[in-house]
Amino acid sequence: MISGAWYKATVAGPDDRSIDTVRTVAEVRARVGAWRAAGDTVGLVPTMGALHEGHLSLVRLSLARAGRTCVSLFVNPTQFGPDEDLRAYPRDEAADAARLAALGADLLFAPGTGEMYPPGDVTEVSVPGLGDCLEGEHRPGFFTGVATVVAKLLMQVRPDIAVFGEKDYQQLLVIKRMVKDLDIPVRIEAAPTVREADGLAMASRNAYLSAAERAAAPALFRTISAVAGQVAGGADAGETAAWGEGLLLKAGFARVDYLTVRDAETLEPVDRAGRPARVLAAAWLGEARLIDNVAVQAGARKGHRPA
Amino acid sequence: MISGAWYKATVAGPDDRSIDTVRTVAEVRARVGAWRAAGDTVGLVPTMGALHEGHLSLVRLSLARAGRTCVSLFVNPTQFGPDEDLRAYPRDEAADAARLAALGADLLFAPGTGEMYPPGDVTEVSVPGLGDCLEGEHRPGFFTGVATVVAKLLMQVRPDIAVFGEKDYQQLLVIKRMVKDLDIPVRIEAAPTVREADGLAMASRNAYLSAAERAAAPALFRTISAVAGQVAGGADAGETAAWGEGLLLKAGFARVDYLTVRDAETLEPVDRAGRPARVLAAAWLGEARLIDNVAVQAGARKGHRPA
Repeated sequence: MISGAWYKATVAGPDDRSIDTVRTVAEVRARVGAWRAAGDTVGLVPTMGALHEGHLSLVRLSLARAGRTCVSLFVNPTQFGPDEDLRAYPRDEAADAARLAALGADLLFAPGTGEMYPPGDVTEVSVPGLGDCLEGEHRPGFFTGVATVVAKLLMQVRPDIAVFGEKDYQQLLVIKRMVKDLDIPVRIEAAPTVREADGLAMASRNAYLSAAERAAAPALFRTISAVAGQVAGGADAGETAAWGEGLLLKAGFARVDYLTVRDAETLEPVDRAGRPARVLAAAWLGEARLIDNVAVQAGARKGHRPA
Repeated sequence: MISGAWYKATVAGPDDRSIDTVRTVAEVRARVGAWRAAGDTVGLVPTMGALHEGHLSLVRLSLARAGRTCVSLFVNPTQFGPDEDLRAYPRDEAADAARLAALGADLLFAPGTGEMYPPGDVTEVSVPGLGDCLEGEHRPGFFTGVATVVAKLLMQVRPDIAVFGEKDYQQLLVIKRMVKDLDIPVRIEAAPTVREADGLAMASRNAYLSAAERAAAPALFRTISAVAGQVAGGADAGETAAWGEGLLLKAGFARVDYLTVRDAETLEPVDRAGRPARVLAAAWLGEARLIDNVAVQAGARKGHRPA
């Protein structure tokens, strides 16, 4: 049994701040209701925990845009496939709470699975098309799991804004689409991807990389950036993407699920730069599946292919 | 072109009351926001128009339970199958508005299809299981259409209560399930079925019945009531339902889609009275498909089979 004093000590930040944790919808609504009654606006940052600098940048954005910030921590089982890493997914709530306390976030909402999916729960929210391609094709049901849990969180917390990272670009589009289509009264804010010094996008699953894999991993960002540069310069999108796939395999990636140039809003394939476009990729490095994406900077000069 | 004066005259009720009609989400939110600011609670009654006494009873319930009542009128194309009666569905907005004005409803929200489903709209809300059986089996996609449009309406209007009729019993369960699962902050109120003097449940589609069909139609309610009585008295549910189907065919119904005894909450088949149960039926009389349902009154004395 964990004593209250131990818990408090663990979650205290470097500047001695702490953060309250609630685990039920009723509690989070009571807190948010009190904030609203006091005239505060409310920001929500949905996470699956294992917080890194990328998450913290979302929290900082919420803190800047809303009077109060609630961070949710829920490792959502419905967005994991049967062969995926639900059980192995990194979890360290005490460390997460300490990081959030240090930033000055106001509340951690960490419901259990039974609170989020009580017995009899069946309703699903799906975003056909946008949610079926790319990640949705390689991870069937993934975006239905994401859209459903985010719809729940938005109804439970009822924030004015909710912050999602561009790192999960397709997820961001799916959530924006869902919020617009269902007229959910919230503004979705997008936060730019946070990267390591060598360009690797921060991700909780980077913890799965061996030292050798970690050394090879930055090739993903380097490659999609090169593809984006070529396409911005007028190169054929399909040919350039195929060239990029070859680079990834040469760099040590075992398999490329996709490396593709898509319309930045609809994710429909594009041939050449024109409307805003995005290069998106998912590729395997050992047991780890990495995803990343970058914008095609329209009007950029033709890039040089790296050797 | 219809002049404003003509419109006003048409929608004025017998006691000279009129009702404002809005057609956009922005307008309905502004009205509801003003009510809330004045401290009023808000009721929503979603309809597809062609209002009859059944609908009006839902409106009266809302008027009794909430300070302000908004009635929506939207013939939702996504809950009609390709072979169904979307184009023929009865429409008379002026008459509907007049009826609502006479009752003292506060606002009619009658969005066009483009307002409810703008270009690019794709998101779907589905309720697997509860939404797949009975009506869902005979009308594939029906309850996804219903759940999606009701989710939208609840987000657009954001009422404290929303009223649905027990006439569409499965729909009522699907909506309740969706609201609970997605944690939508609204209370769903159920209103009992309103019947003609001979027992026929009021329904907009009764307008499709010929005089001879109208004369035969009350057999539906009579039959499911007899089945409910038998089952309450201890009869086998499956055998009694089969007997009821025979009665309907004898009474002139062309086809029975289903006549079945189900758990009143989960709609799972039941063998005998025990947990609260419901008899539900759908059957064809000429071109018209009628549905109806009644509760199995647990503890009732064994009924007598009608001759």
